[in-house]
Amino acid sequence: MKYVFGIDLGGTTVKLGLFTVEGELLDKWEIVTRPENGGEHILPDIAAALQAKLEEKKIALDQVAGAGLGVPGAVLEDRYVKPCVNLNGWGGDVAGMLSEMCGFPVKAANDANVAALGEMWKGGGQGYENVVFVTLGTGVGGGIIINGKLLSGVHGAAGEIGHLKVRAYESEPCGCGKYGCLEQYASATGIVREANRRLTGLAIPSALRSLEKVTAKDVFNCAKEGDALALDVVNLFGNTLGRALANVSCVCDPDVFVIGGGVSAAGQIILDVVQEAFRAHAFPASEGTRFELAKLGNDAGIYGSAQLACS
Amino acid sequence: MKYVFGIDLGGTTVKLGLFTVEGELLDKWEIVTRPENGGEHILPDIAAALQAKLEEKKIALDQVAGAGLGVPGAVLEDRYVKPCVNLNGWGGDVAGMLSEMCGFPVKAANDANVAALGEMWKGGGQGYENVVFVTLGTGVGGGIIINGKLLSGVHGAAGEIGHLKVRAYESEPCGCGKYGCLEQYASATGIVREANRRLTGLAIPSALRSLEKVTAKDVFNCAKEGDALALDVVNLFGNTLGRALANVSCVCDPDVFVIGGGVSAAGQIILDVVQEAFRAHAFPASEGTRFELAKLGNDAGIYGSAQLACS
Repeated sequence: MKYVFGIDLGGTTVKLGLFTVEGELLDKWEIVTRPENGGEHILPDIAAALQAKLEEKKIALDQVAGAGLGVPGAVLEDRYVKPCVNLNGWGGDVAGMLSEMCGFPVKAANDANVAALGEMWKGGGQGYENVVFVTLGTGVGGGIIINGKLLSGVHGAAGEIGHLKVRAYESEPCGCGKYGCLEQYASATGIVREANRRLTGLAIPSALRSLEKVTAKDVFNCAKEGDALALDVVNLFGNTLGRALANVSCVCDPDVFVIGGGVSAAGQIILDVVQEAFRAHAFPASEGTRFELAKLGNDAGIYGSAQLACS
Repeated sequence: MKYVFGIDLGGTTVKLGLFTVEGELLDKWEIVTRPENGGEHILPDIAAALQAKLEEKKIALDQVAGAGLGVPGAVLEDRYVKPCVNLNGWGGDVAGMLSEMCGFPVKAANDANVAALGEMWKGGGQGYENVVFVTLGTGVGGGIIINGKLLSGVHGAAGEIGHLKVRAYESEPCGCGKYGCLEQYASATGIVREANRRLTGLAIPSALRSLEKVTAKDVFNCAKEGDALALDVVNLFGNTLGRALANVSCVCDPDVFVIGGGVSAAGQIILDVVQEAFRAHAFPASEGTRFELAKLGNDAGIYGSAQLACS
């Protein structure tokens, strides 16, 4: 039996998973991320955690095919990580260093990209080789898989779907410094902002007015109940995202779009509004492209890192 | 010495080229395209032309590594062509049929896509493996190359850059049936339309007014002379195209954009206006992406088809 590790490095915790090379999750656990001193403890902590697991499970080093590592930043050539802002500039040849510490091959990739691999392997994109994964959370991330392989891009910026420009006029800057990015409208933050703009600017009644603080979840829940203001926000979200994904289709024309992240917990309503707008704007040959909800939740990262190690 | 043929099938002529596998063009010629009766003569005519060339050059069949065929339509799996509208529905397993007639392997691909391969091999994208080719003519076409390979897409619609949606409101439909496509603004037709809208709607003076019929070339020539109305049209063109290509970068993040087609004959001014808008809208990591003019002109198709045959 051959094993692989999937590692999902976040700003506060590192999620780890032990898998068979066929993709069966045998064990998962977490350790704390220690970002201090330029993240000098990160790789030794991970190596120690993997070593301890091998001892616990009585797995020999030669039974380990490798490990994959998802990181919150841009990655070049499966190994070089550009300095990560929320890990105090941690970066460099992290795959090479971790491989040296562990004694088996390690590959690294961007976290949204490995989540895409995970969803292709065992989630909403299972059975397809051309998958675009969109994660709707505080921001909007993406990962693109072509013929079963991650598309990283020459500058590590392929799949930066959150930064597609979708509005010509926008007064507030996006986190990236530019204006009118998809992330400004299709993230949880963006949905709440649009709701608040209407709640303060319009006199129409809405159940959202009774809430002290509106969340994206509230907006979707009220929309499902038929609340006109909430429905308007949801339709704007759907139209903006669906139109942006129609543009993604004109570039890479995938089998399926898999929608994940916290916002996607709203469920079928997301697929309904996004797919309707997608069909209205897509190039005719691609109108029938599939849409699925992500299935792996917070485990997408460890699944995808493990898949990366297998590829 | 090994040879390959590059074949560029158009609505009125078939361009053919004899190449070495290293990409040296040894001979090129044309035959007439006969689209009648569902295009039944097309493949036999091509096969006869290739056969005659082999006899003329005294090249044995086993010295031919293969042929590539660029077609004006969508292609799946390097061989199946969807019915081509401007060839009376001609299509099917054209690569398989031509291979059968000729006795060497044949691969087919969309004409804009093979032009991209040609420009990567011996043109504006030479030296790069990740190339986005944009052709600005009557319409706007595109071809995307990732790690040296064509990206065709699941429905043959990858690289349909002309159908990126760039305007939210547009009253006239695009040829594809949708509204607000890049092709409606960045093609020669679109540039002329924008110029005419201004010439009829605005009272400002312009050298374009002295012309009986305005062409895209006139617009660029007048813009170079400082004509305010023409400059406005050129800037709109540049902003629309540059912003659209910034979105392409967020998806596939190439090394270089190569701009070809009749409009690109205007030269450096095209790169200047497009690149400025691209930098303003691109995801920061990709701001330095290169821009080049295409170099092969009408030969891009035969070069690219030949490259396809080599790959």
